[in-house]
Amino acid sequence: MHRTHTCGELTLNDLGKEVTLAGWVQKSRDLGGMTFIDVRDRYGITQLLFNMDDNAGLCEQARGLSREFVIKVTGLVVERSNKNPKMPTGDVEIKVTKLELLNAAKLPPFLIEEETDGGDDLRMKYRYLDLRRSPVRNNLILRHKMAQEVRKYLDAQDFLEVETPVLIKSTPEGARDFVVPSRMNPGEFYALPQSPQTFKQLLMVSGFDRYFQIVKCFRDEDLRADRQPEFTQIDCEMAFIEQEDILNTFEGLIRHLFKAIKDIDIDAVPRLYYQDAMRMYGSDKPDTRFGMLFTELNEIVKGHSFPVFDGAELVVGINASGCAHYTRKQLDELTDFIKRPQIGATGLVYCRYNTDGTLKSSVDKFYSEDELKKWAVAFNAQPGDLMLIMAGPTEKVRKQLNELRLEMGNRLGLRDKNNFSPLWVLDFPLLEWDEETGRYHAMHHPFTSPKPEDIALLDSNPGAVRANAYDLVINGTEVGGGSIRIHSRDLQSLMFKHLGFTPEEAQKQFGFLMNAFEYGAPPHGGIAFGFDRLVSIFAGLDSIRDVIAFPKNNSGKDVMIDSPATISEEQLKELCIKTTV
Amino acid sequence: MHRTHTCGELTLNDLGKEVTLAGWVQKSRDLGGMTFIDVRDRYGITQLLFNMDDNAGLCEQARGLSREFVIKVTGLVVERSNKNPKMPTGDVEIKVTKLELLNAAKLPPFLIEEETDGGDDLRMKYRYLDLRRSPVRNNLILRHKMAQEVRKYLDAQDFLEVETPVLIKSTPEGARDFVVPSRMNPGEFYALPQSPQTFKQLLMVSGFDRYFQIVKCFRDEDLRADRQPEFTQIDCEMAFIEQEDILNTFEGLIRHLFKAIKDIDIDAVPRLYYQDAMRMYGSDKPDTRFGMLFTELNEIVKGHSFPVFDGAELVVGINASGCAHYTRKQLDELTDFIKRPQIGATGLVYCRYNTDGTLKSSVDKFYSEDELKKWAVAFNAQPGDLMLIMAGPTEKVRKQLNELRLEMGNRLGLRDKNNFSPLWVLDFPLLEWDEETGRYHAMHHPFTSPKPEDIALLDSNPGAVRANAYDLVINGTEVGGGSIRIHSRDLQSLMFKHLGFTPEEAQKQFGFLMNAFEYGAPPHGGIAFGFDRLVSIFAGLDSIRDVIAFPKNNSGKDVMIDSPATISEEQLKELCIKTTV
Repeated sequence: MHRTHTCGELTLNDLGKEVTLAGWVQKSRDLGGMTFIDVRDRYGITQLLFNMDDNAGLCEQARGLSREFVIKVTGLVVERSNKNPKMPTGDVEIKVTKLELLNAAKLPPFLIEEETDGGDDLRMKYRYLDLRRSPVRNNLILRHKMAQEVRKYLDAQDFLEVETPVLIKSTPEGARDFVVPSRMNPGEFYALPQSPQTFKQLLMVSGFDRYFQIVKCFRDEDLRADRQPEFTQIDCEMAFIEQEDILNTFEGLIRHLFKAIKDIDIDAVPRLYYQDAMRMYGSDKPDTRFGMLFTELNEIVKGHSFPVFDGAELVVGINASGCAHYTRKQLDELTDFIKRPQIGATGLVYCRYNTDGTLKSSVDKFYSEDELKKWAVAFNAQPGDLMLIMAGPTEKVRKQLNELRLEMGNRLGLRDKNNFSPLWVLDFPLLEWDEETGRYHAMHHPFTSPKPEDIALLDSNPGAVRANAYDLVINGTEVGGGSIRIHSRDLQSLMFKHLGFTPEEAQKQFGFLMNAFEYGAPPHGGIAFGFDRLVSIFAGLDSIRDVIAFPKNNSGKDVMIDSPATISEEQLKELCIKTTV
Repeated sequence: MHRTHTCGELTLNDLGKEVTLAGWVQKSRDLGGMTFIDVRDRYGITQLLFNMDDNAGLCEQARGLSREFVIKVTGLVVERSNKNPKMPTGDVEIKVTKLELLNAAKLPPFLIEEETDGGDDLRMKYRYLDLRRSPVRNNLILRHKMAQEVRKYLDAQDFLEVETPVLIKSTPEGARDFVVPSRMNPGEFYALPQSPQTFKQLLMVSGFDRYFQIVKCFRDEDLRADRQPEFTQIDCEMAFIEQEDILNTFEGLIRHLFKAIKDIDIDAVPRLYYQDAMRMYGSDKPDTRFGMLFTELNEIVKGHSFPVFDGAELVVGINASGCAHYTRKQLDELTDFIKRPQIGATGLVYCRYNTDGTLKSSVDKFYSEDELKKWAVAFNAQPGDLMLIMAGPTEKVRKQLNELRLEMGNRLGLRDKNNFSPLWVLDFPLLEWDEETGRYHAMHHPFTSPKPEDIALLDSNPGAVRANAYDLVINGTEVGGGSIRIHSRDLQSLMFKHLGFTPEEAQKQFGFLMNAFEYGAPPHGGIAFGFDRLVSIFAGLDSIRDVIAFPKNNSGKDVMIDSPATISEEQLKELCIKTTV
């Protein structure tokens, strides 16, 4: 071993010991006849001391070291005169007696410090250097710990981790499948799984009962929205259970993670029906760290000759507590915010509830102060509050007001990254209408079971059918989702029919699963968590890229290894394919 | 929850409890007015009792159940009159008061029993039914446990599990790479990793120090020799270490696994140099469960006018203890065995050391009994032993005799699956000559470091250069291999030169790694274990297929999901490729 200790462990308890450390030169400074070098490894930083008077040759050698050189030193642990209480090793230094250069280093293209001067592109190209910085390293250590704790919790509950295949089959929904030509089977392709969905269901048919896997999944889609072509799921499935069992088991997992990793006690996770979430927050993944719930105003505001409200399907607002003092400029900013193309609202009505008890709105022409008082009552507003109101088609205006609510949450500092508010959203719709294709799609996936009492609606009102489907949301981000599955061949066939499959298509693509349902399939259901996302929330980060060791950029490229790349004609020929570019 | 208990846990301690179980009908028999049903789940089997006198309707309902129906029953735990001591639940049965059919089942195409009547093809097609059989299920449970224990051991030693990318870049050695066309980057391809080798080395450059990953790897090659196109490795790497540290750390892992999983104490793992392994066993992965080491006879046998021996580069044999009684027929069988085309030897010389002290060989014409006595001394043979001798070119005859040694081990029952004999093989050659391409190839991989004292031989005698490379062998199977890596750009360039790369080719393919070596790369090395193989050895199985949930067949096909398969023209067009079949 090139060391007796790491750079993160020596303290006053080790005084007088001869130790050997190895690591990278973090920084170096000369002070009179002395040279101090900070040596860094994964575990911390330790100060090295060289003294011209003691050993001029060694000290000269030390002065020749630059940042990021890899060294090995032997020396005595001594007490520092100038202690650094911020570092665990800050009470001691090593009086070096022997120095070995293990490898030299060129000047790094950016600073290897907590805060770096490197831009995104440069740090991606030299990802191996960026990974040396403690914030990035700590993210991956967190990720490791979370994976270990997930396994510990699930193993203790009799879940078995079973590896499912990576080389599977493309499906008709597989427009976003990555495919892999087979050399042994020319003209044929494997596909990489978007999830192990059908395999975990087959494991339930096999009697495996409680399955999980921390597993890579793949989706070939546009990567704008902080997505990666390969991502990691905590994939879980249980048999002989009902929805309640899944909710309890995985609420337990999340609470275990918060406790084990962050020492935070999480209360029982509240539950909200999808319909209520949409009505109260305009979102199926509401950020419940703060209130500011939607108030619907149709009954109060209509019939006052204000055409915007009179003509709207829904008039709905939020009450920004304590914001009555907002200036014209601040209100204009909010209006500009909701008019941005990605939100697309046309206007914002405000109503100030001044601290003196008077009410002042941007639509005073249409509404008397008495009328505005009714608004204040509906909002449960207090003097000093600011009511913000929007109008339009229900679905659209809810989405827009959701954006405004989140923006107000940001402005008011209500979205603290160290405050965690998990939430179950239940009873998602089974189907959603796709304008583009003019047909219904499965909102979750085609294996999700409808609520038994809603099956009759499948023909008459498909959009109203509720699914046994649930999402786990933390701080406004969906971190997991799942459902109770269909386990009968007949119901699965009916479902495929409603999704526009012919019986032949359904059999060709999913025959293996429907056949399996005929050989004794138990009731089952499951959930999958986006592991990258979950880790990023625990790390207080906005992007999943920072919790992935070697992420790809927005074009799906790994600029460090320069991938994807062309391959040789010989390779293409062996695989019996040609490119058409 | 559809049950209060599993089918594997009820005992006399539970007498009188009302319980609910769910599972599959294993078998059913009627006895007078009673019906007994064995209900099975992952955890075991429990006997259910239905009584015509108590509840005729319920009993009739039970009589309608067939094998593999999924049921849910509620009833009272009672003592069995006819106990079954072979089953943990064999002392009790459930007097059923309520029976619910959760799902019916068609007759399975083969018996769901420990021993089945299903052939390989049928069982692969209905893998989800084969997985219900307890031997198959137990293999996957073993696999889960081993993965958990690997993680526990490595986590306790400060190893971090870091996920490396699955979508990487094809390399010129990548003739066996699976490739993945990129939709976002038309005409370009990712490749699936044959191992995370370069990424784990980059993690060492990043200071991660101790890395591991249980990870899928991929190789598109012929699958005859019990291989799978996707397989799982325990991939590990350490920095600031020497070979000795790797050997100690991972010997510790193997010993931990044997103790934790099988409660077997493994002694310190013996070590053998590659050269000695070849000389003593004719194999770089000797089965050390038994002796029967090679004895070289050149000095004794030459010069006696026996042309086969006189003309041979090497005359070498083994002593089969206690086999002097072998009949002519048995000896002919051995000769036929080594003459099989896959072994290809031309003949076998034997010499019986009879129990009466006389010696009798198949070459008495050339060797007197006094001469044969010298053979016996060389072999350290005793009366009753049988010496088996072969001759030919050194490398070839060693391989052939290795096969004969293993065959004799089988015949003599010396290769017990419950006896585990691990071994380190050290100092593998760095390079091996490839007749086909007429150049040297890296025996391990191009990143393996030569022994410093052998670097000078790279120009003069490349084949003699030893590598800092090691394999872990158990019972004649290589379960892991690794090396100390090159960590200097200059040495890595030199290595690529000797492998026939131009500097440009080396830079194009592995520039990112060689560049990384210039920014402060620590000394490092690692090892990777074939996890499928390791589990199969622990399970006492010959094939890795039995420890994989959903394996592919010898043509790389998953016959259950019918993959690989053709994909649509639309998909091909989007990916900018065409098939040429």
